[in-house]
Amino acid sequence: MQTDYTPRPEHKFSFGLWTVGNRGRDPFGDAVRPPLPPVDAVRLLAKVGAWGVNLHDNDLVPIDASLAERDRIVGEFKKACRDCGLVVPMATVNLFFDAVFRDGAFTANDAEVRAYARQKTMQAMDLGAELGARIFVLWGGREGTETDACRRPDDAIKRLREAVNYLCEYSLHRRYGFRFALEAKPNEPRGDIYMATTGAYLGFIPTLDHPEMVGVNPEVAHEQMAGLNFLHAVAQAWEAGKLFHIDLNDQMPGRYDQDFRFGSANIKSAFGLVKFLEDAGYDGPRHFDAHAYRTEDYSGVEDFARGCMRTYLILKERAARWNADSEIQSLLKEMGEASAPIRYSPQNATQLLSREFDRQKLASKGLSYERLDQLTVEVLLGVR
Amino acid sequence: MQTDYTPRPEHKFSFGLWTVGNRGRDPFGDAVRPPLPPVDAVRLLAKVGAWGVNLHDNDLVPIDASLAERDRIVGEFKKACRDCGLVVPMATVNLFFDAVFRDGAFTANDAEVRAYARQKTMQAMDLGAELGARIFVLWGGREGTETDACRRPDDAIKRLREAVNYLCEYSLHRRYGFRFALEAKPNEPRGDIYMATTGAYLGFIPTLDHPEMVGVNPEVAHEQMAGLNFLHAVAQAWEAGKLFHIDLNDQMPGRYDQDFRFGSANIKSAFGLVKFLEDAGYDGPRHFDAHAYRTEDYSGVEDFARGCMRTYLILKERAARWNADSEIQSLLKEMGEASAPIRYSPQNATQLLSREFDRQKLASKGLSYERLDQLTVEVLLGVR
Amino acid sequence: MQTDYTPRPEHKFSFGLWTVGNRGRDPFGDAVRPPLPPVDAVRLLAKVGAWGVNLHDNDLVPIDASLAERDRIVGEFKKACRDCGLVVPMATVNLFFDAVFRDGAFTANDAEVRAYARQKTMQAMDLGAELGARIFVLWGGREGTETDACRRPDDAIKRLREAVNYLCEYSLHRRYGFRFALEAKPNEPRGDIYMATTGAYLGFIPTLDHPEMVGVNPEVAHEQMAGLNFLHAVAQAWEAGKLFHIDLNDQMPGRYDQDFRFGSANIKSAFGLVKFLEDAGYDGPRHFDAHAYRTEDYSGVEDFARGCMRTYLILKERAARWNADSEIQSLLKEMGEASAPIRYSPQNATQLLSREFDRQKLASKGLSYERLDQLTVEVLLGVR
Amino acid sequence: MQTDYTPRPEHKFSFGLWTVGNRGRDPFGDAVRPPLPPVDAVRLLAKVGAWGVNLHDNDLVPIDASLAERDRIVGEFKKACRDCGLVVPMATVNLFFDAVFRDGAFTANDAEVRAYARQKTMQAMDLGAELGARIFVLWGGREGTETDACRRPDDAIKRLREAVNYLCEYSLHRRYGFRFALEAKPNEPRGDIYMATTGAYLGFIPTLDHPEMVGVNPEVAHEQMAGLNFLHAVAQAWEAGKLFHIDLNDQMPGRYDQDFRFGSANIKSAFGLVKFLEDAGYDGPRHFDAHAYRTEDYSGVEDFARGCMRTYLILKERAARWNADSEIQSLLKEMGEASAPIRYSPQNATQLLSREFDRQKLASKGLSYERLDQLTVEVLLGVR
Repeated sequence: MQTDYTPRPEHKFSFGLWTVGNRGRDPFGDAVRPPLPPVDAVRLLAKVGAWGVNLHDNDLVPIDASLAERDRIVGEFKKACRDCGLVVPMATVNLFFDAVFRDGAFTANDAEVRAYARQKTMQAMDLGAELGARIFVLWGGREGTETDACRRPDDAIKRLREAVNYLCEYSLHRRYGFRFALEAKPNEPRGDIYMATTGAYLGFIPTLDHPEMVGVNPEVAHEQMAGLNFLHAVAQAWEAGKLFHIDLNDQMPGRYDQDFRFGSANIKSAFGLVKFLEDAGYDGPRHFDAHAYRTEDYSGVEDFARGCMRTYLILKERAARWNADSEIQSLLKEMGEASAPIRYSPQNATQLLSREFDRQKLASKGLSYERLDQLTVEVLLGVR
Repeated sequence: MQTDYTPRPEHKFSFGLWTVGNRGRDPFGDAVRPPLPPVDAVRLLAKVGAWGVNLHDNDLVPIDASLAERDRIVGEFKKACRDCGLVVPMATVNLFFDAVFRDGAFTANDAEVRAYARQKTMQAMDLGAELGARIFVLWGGREGTETDACRRPDDAIKRLREAVNYLCEYSLHRRYGFRFALEAKPNEPRGDIYMATTGAYLGFIPTLDHPEMVGVNPEVAHEQMAGLNFLHAVAQAWEAGKLFHIDLNDQMPGRYDQDFRFGSANIKSAFGLVKFLEDAGYDGPRHFDAHAYRTEDYSGVEDFARGCMRTYLILKERAARWNADSEIQSLLKEMGEASAPIRYSPQNATQLLSREFDRQKLASKGLSYERLDQLTVEVLLGVR
Repeated sequence: MQTDYTPRPEHKFSFGLWTVGNRGRDPFGDAVRPPLPPVDAVRLLAKVGAWGVNLHDNDLVPIDASLAERDRIVGEFKKACRDCGLVVPMATVNLFFDAVFRDGAFTANDAEVRAYARQKTMQAMDLGAELGARIFVLWGGREGTETDACRRPDDAIKRLREAVNYLCEYSLHRRYGFRFALEAKPNEPRGDIYMATTGAYLGFIPTLDHPEMVGVNPEVAHEQMAGLNFLHAVAQAWEAGKLFHIDLNDQMPGRYDQDFRFGSANIKSAFGLVKFLEDAGYDGPRHFDAHAYRTEDYSGVEDFARGCMRTYLILKERAARWNADSEIQSLLKEMGEASAPIRYSPQNATQLLSREFDRQKLASKGLSYERLDQLTVEVLLGVR
Repeated sequence: MQTDYTPRPEHKFSFGLWTVGNRGRDPFGDAVRPPLPPVDAVRLLAKVGAWGVNLHDNDLVPIDASLAERDRIVGEFKKACRDCGLVVPMATVNLFFDAVFRDGAFTANDAEVRAYARQKTMQAMDLGAELGARIFVLWGGREGTETDACRRPDDAIKRLREAVNYLCEYSLHRRYGFRFALEAKPNEPRGDIYMATTGAYLGFIPTLDHPEMVGVNPEVAHEQMAGLNFLHAVAQAWEAGKLFHIDLNDQMPGRYDQDFRFGSANIKSAFGLVKFLEDAGYDGPRHFDAHAYRTEDYSGVEDFARGCMRTYLILKERAARWNADSEIQSLLKEMGEASAPIRYSPQNATQLLSREFDRQKLASKGLSYERLDQLTVEVLLGVR
């Protein structure tokens, strides 16, 4: 078994500028850490062993920067990435911080705001393309309501579709090669956010003009805020070929968006996720969208970032151990062989209808799931 | 304004046999009401003014009934419906009560169980077709896990797809004309249920062989258990042309499945839903999937059923009042005109990129949503 | 029935400076409204008809104000209150915004921080007393953890007790006459906050040196964040003689702290609360701890404040209507007469043990709670 | 470090008859396991290594048993316990299963029901005393509402108090020596249950006639259903000297009552709890109130029971390892020394008011909680 938990480029660990640069501002409190210039964030990430750095447009370039300022900032950032050996796999756009987006961006009632949101996203795509990103995440943090009296929710969906279709064309026209990854969240900062779950986006994508260009970016915390099983959402996205990106962090269910260090709230859920990604062969970035507690200085931020990656690697090693455990494998084997899918034919339907099943017998066999789950816990605890 | 709240056939109010027939059994307590024979349930529903009655196969025909018993029971039931003037708009199959389904039905690890589930569903389709139902609901109450160690969730999805594809073919082959309505639920009775939300099913449907035959059956309580905005889920389904059926009841978020009388937990949410269904022109059944408190005898069950329909009709009248309120309409008008969708062109993209937006101005306009929401509350409270 | 919903001094409606002065800053977005100077907040509250204005020390006096600045600011504020006819029934202390409190205040691991928190509270008490407040609220927003590894939670309770005991002595020594009202919250801004519920504080108070000086300040949103029935918490506090203050607002369960306009999330829960306060004879302030949506300018803030009070008054009128409804009263009467409490005696115990109860008979009587609840909904909807 | 995870009597592991005897009945499904006679349950528990067995009256004696039947059953059970070397540390009463309790027991509106509930509890106390139990748990599973219109919640509290006072007197009079442990739950099977949290009971106890006889029985799942931090609730009970008993199991927040195997939902929370109980020196029973998945036969039930105890013992060993970890201890030491409580004096108050604090300095020190938490995770995962 591997027991070296050092992050390496092949692990594809990435962090957003906004994660290590998070200053700890929250609804009831001010920032606790000084600003971390993007170039310093790049150095911090390189130091702890990350492979990639992601960003919203305004993480790097202030919303009111002049073109000259923008170019200077971008140039310095590119140099820092080059110097540090970091890539920029993903870019995104901030459509939530500025007051202009208080009623949403693509779905806002004001057509001017919708147009501005589109313009800002196109510019963020320009930036992302320039930095080499091939994944563009769209998180519509303000696309929602506190009162549903303000607009029909089906109109909001139409507006959202119109925007995504437009942006796909823009990427095609500019030959940016972006794959868009849509990120769902149920609420916060809006009372309710449209497209509350990864599933909702999986339903939305087939209604687009270019469904092949669009997938999802599920985030642990966002599904768990609603108490949903994150693994199930990821598996559905994967099975549909739509797992374009993933946001790793942690969260207790039924609460504000906590964005905790990966694996720090629920070790077992994190294990199930890592195991699935590794078993399935997901080869995209392992992106950590989390931030350090407010109790930390930047040395603590480094601890936080290191912890995310180290826990991932420990859990990856446990997944291998689980797969290699002979008792576990023997339990799995007993559970039922894979069977070829049965396609309908009038003949097999007639046959099926005439079969007699022994319900009592089928129902009386113990399935050993308690044992299987206990063994899983023990693999995690390192006692087997 | 309409102020007659008497249910009529054109309102298409339906109840499941299992709703008025619910005997109050729960995890910590025994039944509190004597069994209600299906024929008596039909009479009770006719008495309170319902239009339709729906059923699981085993609500009517015991799981181990002989063919002769089945035919006698079905005959009596059809006669009772005829006598009482009730239709059977929807049928479904019980794939959760019998112990054989403890590990799921279509997704169970045991291939025999999966085959039996398919057979049982085909027989339930036969029954539904015989009763005149054209909507067939599939709720996979046991399709889930307590421990995800027991199977890969993407395998579960494949099994589910295989089953639904098979059943679509069966309906086509038998010329039953069914439209399938898939019903999501996040958990209970399983620790987690696959396809946790309506959105998940909207993402699943386009991957089927006959997506046009399959839609969703959103249930108020099921989305609200996860604290999700039910209206948003319904609107997405509607906008996608997939709102084939709907289950009305009520529920406090973050709890066990309560199935309360419609409108009894959150009047404002119920109002938003009724308003949407009526404004959008949904013309399917208004099906109440709820049951009376355990404190009730069958007279209380009648109160319960009457209350569901009466509250719906009061809220429908309030929706009309809201639409007719001139202050509300004037606030809506100020919020922004509908605008034609903008399709991408290189020209309009260039134009958009060169536009200057006055963020401060856009952000400083008060949107009067507090006023709009307060007026909504006052329409509900009947003070305007 | 009263149908004038104009707020009057006898209704004792109060707002915090921080409520109408809320600028809409949230974890994902900047302020959307310009600062509202305290004196202007007083005028706004007077204009909409409030009776009282409450404050944290730093709502009025900046944390780093000099003594001279403080005195000038306080003087202007007192004059504004006098001019506008507003009273200051309650004061409190901000122990959460400044970065010094990132690990808590009274329970922080650093003894210096604990000492500073105590000093700051004493100064806030001086301020409150000067303004005429007789209720002092303590909300320990930062008294909690993200990782319980950092301290034993029973040590935190001991530190909290030590602080409250100290502050009681200070109030006594200065003859301030304060009654302390402790405010619980389950989480946010900390991962978990100690003393998560009003019940926890009711258990804590009897362990203090001066339990008679200390009660609770339950907040709608804080109990509902945990999905708890707020009415039950308030009733327990009331029955124990500990309902010293109350924070009215609204909240969907299982989410971030929303602080919505009173009655805007769940009308029926709000009704139950108003009915209880009025029926029980609570005569303290009706304090609204809420804020306007970010979509609003200060005209919308006025709408928000007016809406809180108006909805309270409508619900109060509905409570009277409910009490006067003869069908409701007759249902209540059937439910069982009040009976004198039975105190134990060996004789009545022997008698009780020998009684025979007819369980079937007791269990078969319909209790008409569905009817009662439907009538309640209809009183709310204004159709009876 | 201890690495033998064999349960021994000194660990005081107990199970309820209803836990290993749970037949898997749930709201949507029938029983999946045959009945397990109490005597067989005792043997199963002895086989897996438990120390104690607890019971509701009707787990052992059917509600309608004759006195002769009761005596025979009790005799056989006592013999089985003796033969197997099991003790009965705790007894309780079932006030929720029979339909007579559909509106509650001690708080029901019908005075006859309240009297019957009291009689039944006294008889259950007789039984518990006969079996040697010294802890009597009261869980008021039906003491609640679906509609708060049915009674004032403060009246319910008064009724509850009256009942507990009566039962205390009965215990005193009969010299049973019981300590009562009150068990809270927020909801299910009622819409809302009175005394929703352990904190609520800690507030209730001081209002009783014999507060010294009454403590609490916190249950993991019950606090976590409301998303609350269970450790904090236990710590408050412990600090108040009121931790008379504890119910160990597991639960995902915001869901139906899952009663999962201890440690199977959240390993880290379970660790925090075990560490607290062991560090604090709790020496009461470690009672598992959980049950096996419905997928299990009785061999799986044994796996389940073994897993509960084994996970507890592994976590206990990890707690010792954590305490012995020098890096962890050094981080804890830096966090702040314990300081003697400061009692108020006019002198120290004056001193405190005149002190100057350097907020910036206090706020800028990194607290290393990310590191501490990561080390905790790594101790759990067995990599240090």
